[in-house]
Amino acid sequence: MLDLCLLGTGGMMPLPKRALTALMTRFNGSSLLIDCGEGTQVSIREKGWSFHQIDVICFTHYHGDHISGLPGLLLSMGNAERTEPVTLIGPKGLERVVSALRCIAPELPFPIIYREIEGAAQHFSIHGYEIDTYKVNHNILCYGYSIEIPRAGRFDPEKAEKNQVPKRLWSRLQKGETFTEDGIVYTQDMILGPKRKGIKVTYCTDSRPTDAIVEAAKGADLFICEGMYGEKDKAAKAVEHRHMTMQEAAKIAAKAMPREAWLTHYSPSMVRPEEYMDSVKKIYEHIKAARDRWSLTLDFDKNE
Amino acid sequence: MLDLCLLGTGGMMPLPKRALTALMTRFNGSSLLIDCGEGTQVSIREKGWSFHQIDVICFTHYHGDHISGLPGLLLSMGNAERTEPVTLIGPKGLERVVSALRCIAPELPFPIIYREIEGAAQHFSIHGYEIDTYKVNHNILCYGYSIEIPRAGRFDPEKAEKNQVPKRLWSRLQKGETFTEDGIVYTQDMILGPKRKGIKVTYCTDSRPTDAIVEAAKGADLFICEGMYGEKDKAAKAVEHRHMTMQEAAKIAAKAMPREAWLTHYSPSMVRPEEYMDSVKKIYEHIKAARDRWSLTLDFDKNE
Repeated sequence: MLDLCLLGTGGMMPLPKRALTALMTRFNGSSLLIDCGEGTQVSIREKGWSFHQIDVICFTHYHGDHISGLPGLLLSMGNAERTEPVTLIGPKGLERVVSALRCIAPELPFPIIYREIEGAAQHFSIHGYEIDTYKVNHNILCYGYSIEIPRAGRFDPEKAEKNQVPKRLWSRLQKGETFTEDGIVYTQDMILGPKRKGIKVTYCTDSRPTDAIVEAAKGADLFICEGMYGEKDKAAKAVEHRHMTMQEAAKIAAKAMPREAWLTHYSPSMVRPEEYMDSVKKIYEHIKAARDRWSLTLDFDKNE
Repeated sequence: MLDLCLLGTGGMMPLPKRALTALMTRFNGSSLLIDCGEGTQVSIREKGWSFHQIDVICFTHYHGDHISGLPGLLLSMGNAERTEPVTLIGPKGLERVVSALRCIAPELPFPIIYREIEGAAQHFSIHGYEIDTYKVNHNILCYGYSIEIPRAGRFDPEKAEKNQVPKRLWSRLQKGETFTEDGIVYTQDMILGPKRKGIKVTYCTDSRPTDAIVEAAKGADLFICEGMYGEKDKAAKAVEHRHMTMQEAAKIAAKAMPREAWLTHYSPSMVRPEEYMDSVKKIYEHIKAARDRWSLTLDFDKNE
């Protein structure tokens, strides 16, 4: 079961009733954050979630509205007496940028682990999260993220017997243990059927539309995507600043066909994103203009 | 006329209904800010004031809760198309700290002027504000601020005649112009009586009580002072972290006797600062537990 909360839906600058775009997920006692703008920690408090379990913080890029809240969050996590390490994932330059920002948060009671993304795509396995990063197209180096909770296959007794796995190991193998007996290594995959669909959330901001985003969002239960502008006359501005319109985001969704899509990262000039949803929903039916702290609990499909 | 707004009353970390402590003043088309924590720009928006006229930003010290909002504010000021320079005033290290934070706000359309405070006290005259800084006693280098709007003396025709100032210059001299005629320099002070009481606001956070704060707050129309803790059993914690209790702040006020005093910079653990005001008001009657965005307009005394 994965809980998620879109902590804010703003782009560029925080507003009184619209926090900057950031996503928080909770899975199996471990929380993950994507982006951390000025005020993200306040939105976490408004939601009533804890800083304490934030084990991973991912950054799409280093524009202020996506990372300006990091020193404050780290200080608050320190004040909450965290001592376990926190892993930061982000584009090249991560350690340099975070170290600079930490001039106002030099002393923390926990270590920071830096994982800089290399190349056009990289995979990270951490705290039960399977994280795929993919390069997008912004005016500085920027990545999107897919967060997956994998699901093992069903127990397959025929396969277990075919693989000559002793019965007494079956239940413990299902729990993920591994055994070596008489020189034979017994692993979970010897008694399980093909992997079943897990939980997948794909996140993208800030970018022009690209094929990489479509590929990443395929099979997603939730696709969260920037839709900075809604007005037709802002299309050129979206191109100029390497952002995308709500309609462009819907076109990506229409190709990737996620179960549901949420728009976010609205321009401060866009007061009511819902106003543009008629044209957007014509492009992809299952898309919504998200609001701050929209939340969802995603579970494995009971029919699979 | 000086408008002021206490943008927040929190210490340590921003909370959903309590922004970090910062003060904004407006005078003669020029705004001044003291401290800029995470969310200060949101509180300015809530108040409905403009970023555009912020000409001066003063820092008490470089703990995160007093400066973490600077990169975001600078970016927002840049987005508001400011081109005039912004002057930053703060303890030694100002340029180093701000330059580090600006790794996420590298390109601004306006220049920044750095004025690092030297020694135990320094005076700055800028945009009509007369600013006195005074060193306080925190666990890192920290200063308090007095902001004064000076007021010229009354026109004194007897003095003008005694100084043999030609009558045709009187009105223009009163407006602050200076003239040289026949080798004689005519200045405003030749026709005006003694300076009258201006407007004075004194600001102090974070510090243990010191005589310098008492001296600074003498004659203030408003004295804004931290009162981090209210509970008796937190007195030792105040000493340990070099903060002060509400009662200690009231004792400073009782010595300095400002027209009014506001407490601020409450610990996140203090939910209702008003609870402690009975004991605090016994120490100094004219002291209040301020709340976010309390505002005041101070004018010259009509009777003087």
